[in-house]
Amino acid sequence: MTIPARLSIVTLGVADLGRSVAFYEAIGWTRSAASNDDIAWFALAGCAIGLFPRGELAADIGVPDGAGGFGGITLAINVESEQLVDAALATAVAAGGSLAKSGQRAEWGGYSGYFADLDANYWEVAFNPEFPIAADGSILLP
Amino acid sequence: MTIPARLSIVTLGVADLGRSVAFYEAIGWTRSAASNDDIAWFALAGCAIGLFPRGELAADIGVPDGAGGFGGITLAINVESEQLVDAALATAVAAGGSLAKSGQRAEWGGYSGYFADLDANYWEVAFNPEFPIAADGSILLP
Repeated sequence: MTIPARLSIVTLGVADLGRSVAFYEAIGWTRSAASNDDIAWFALAGCAIGLFPRGELAADIGVPDGAGGFGGITLAINVESEQLVDAALATAVAAGGSLAKSGQRAEWGGYSGYFADLDANYWEVAFNPEFPIAADGSILLP
Repeated sequence: MTIPARLSIVTLGVADLGRSVAFYEAIGWTRSAASNDDIAWFALAGCAIGLFPRGELAADIGVPDGAGGFGGITLAINVESEQLVDAALATAVAAGGSLAKSGQRAEWGGYSGYFADLDANYWEVAFNPEFPIAADGSILLP
C-alpha cells in the first residue's frame, strides 16, 4: 500500500508551553478546544499545529533531545484505523526509511508509531478517534 | 493585524535531494509539476511539503546549519501580497518573536522573510505569485 498524501499535524516541541501559547495567541491564532494543560492545538488552514514540551516530544519518539539529534519538530499523518498505521509504517520502511517506534496504543487514547525519513525527520502515523478525518484527508480539529 | 491562521508549506532540508525524492515517491507520493532540479514539491491534503538541500535552506534564512542550531525544517505561511508579508513579520516581532530575515524580493520571483518563534522554529512568510491561495487559505500547488 501507499501512505496517504497528507500532512495532518506539525507539532513543535517548546521549552515553555505557557509562553509559547501566549506567543501564538498574540499573533492572532485561537487555541482549539482540544487543547489541555499538556498540549495546545491550533487549527490552521491546511494542517494543524500542536505545541508540546520539547523533551516530552523527543521522549514520545524515544530519541535523545540533544545536539545534532532531534530537531524539535514532528510531522503527523493521521489515518483511519490502527491497521492503516501499521501498514503505513511498513511502507515507509520498505521505501528505505527507518522504524523509530512501532505502532502501539498511546496514552492519549489512540494508536501511533513513528518512522524516520532519510534525514531523520520524524513522521508520526496515528489513528486518533478524537480527530475525525474529512473527505479530503484533512483532520477536523475539535 | 494578525497573521492568517494557515500553514502553507513545510520544507524539509535534505542531504541528498535525489535520494529523498525517491524515498517520498516510494511511499506513493507524486511530485508536483512545480518541482525542478533545485526543489521538489509534493501536494498533500492540508499543506504542501517541499524538499530542498539542507544547507541551502539554512542559507536562505541566513543561519548556520550546525549542532544545536537550525533543526532542518521550515514552516511557511503564504499570503496574498508583499505588504502582507511585511505586516505579518511585524506582528510576529510585536508578539515577542524575532526577525530572522526581513521581507525582501526572492530569487524565485516572490517576496519573503522569516521570523523565529520562542523556540527558534523558523516561519517563512511569503508572497508567491506562482502558488495561488484558495478561499480557505490553503495554497493550490501546480
